[in-house]
Amino acid sequence: MKIHPIGVVRSCNQDFQKIEIFEDFSKGLKGIEDSQHLWILYWIHKISRDQRKVLQVHPMGNLTQPKRGVFTTRSPARPNPIGLTKVKLVKKEGNILIVQGLDAFEGSPVLDIKSF
Amino acid sequence: MKIHPIGVVRSCNQDFQKIEIFEDFSKGLKGIEDSQHLWILYWIHKISRDQRKVLQVHPMGNLTQPKRGVFTTRSPARPNPIGLTKVKLVKKEGNILIVQGLDAFEGSPVLDIKSF
Repeated sequence: MKIHPIGVVRSCNQDFQKIEIFEDFSKGLKGIEDSQHLWILYWIHKISRDQRKVLQVHPMGNLTQPKRGVFTTRSPARPNPIGLTKVKLVKKEGNILIVQGLDAFEGSPVLDIKSF
Repeated sequence: MKIHPIGVVRSCNQDFQKIEIFEDFSKGLKGIEDSQHLWILYWIHKISRDQRKVLQVHPMGNLTQPKRGVFTTRSPARPNPIGLTKVKLVKKEGNILIVQGLDAFEGSPVLDIKSF
């Protein structure tokens, strides 16, 4: 199964994050201004092939805690490194979304946006 | 970017849905019994290549409503047809999860499980 980016995380500071949706997909944003919150699905692009094989981790990297399955954690190292974050939509400027609460890295490919 | 299934939706009736996590990934479930709710990410496998090009739809298929961008809807026809549903974890039996609330189809590949 192949996925392709619909956009990219352009900047991430503590207060605001900027998502660019590529022109080819910008029609998919029609009406998004009505949403207060969005779910952003993105590719955690800094995860290596080896990290995708990790199945158990110490929660929050805390070595005093026993290892748990990655599917019970928010660990970015997982078989399919798809990040999922609920953000607040602050503003839409053309095909740029300004949001709050996104914990992606700059340059993370955006895969999907859901609003419900 | 390539993704690969970690499991599959085995059955979907109105009351309960059954997810099989493949043996290769079952270590990733360790401790999941502690979770009441899970987010299931799955591949909406009945969506064709042409349907992945759809960017605007009538909300809920209601033709009296103007079209909206797919990123503002739950339409399964979207560039990356990744389904996202919050479910209640009823029971874990080995590498089978019995859940409630999953709106996938039987045979849908499961991509990730998140618990938070």
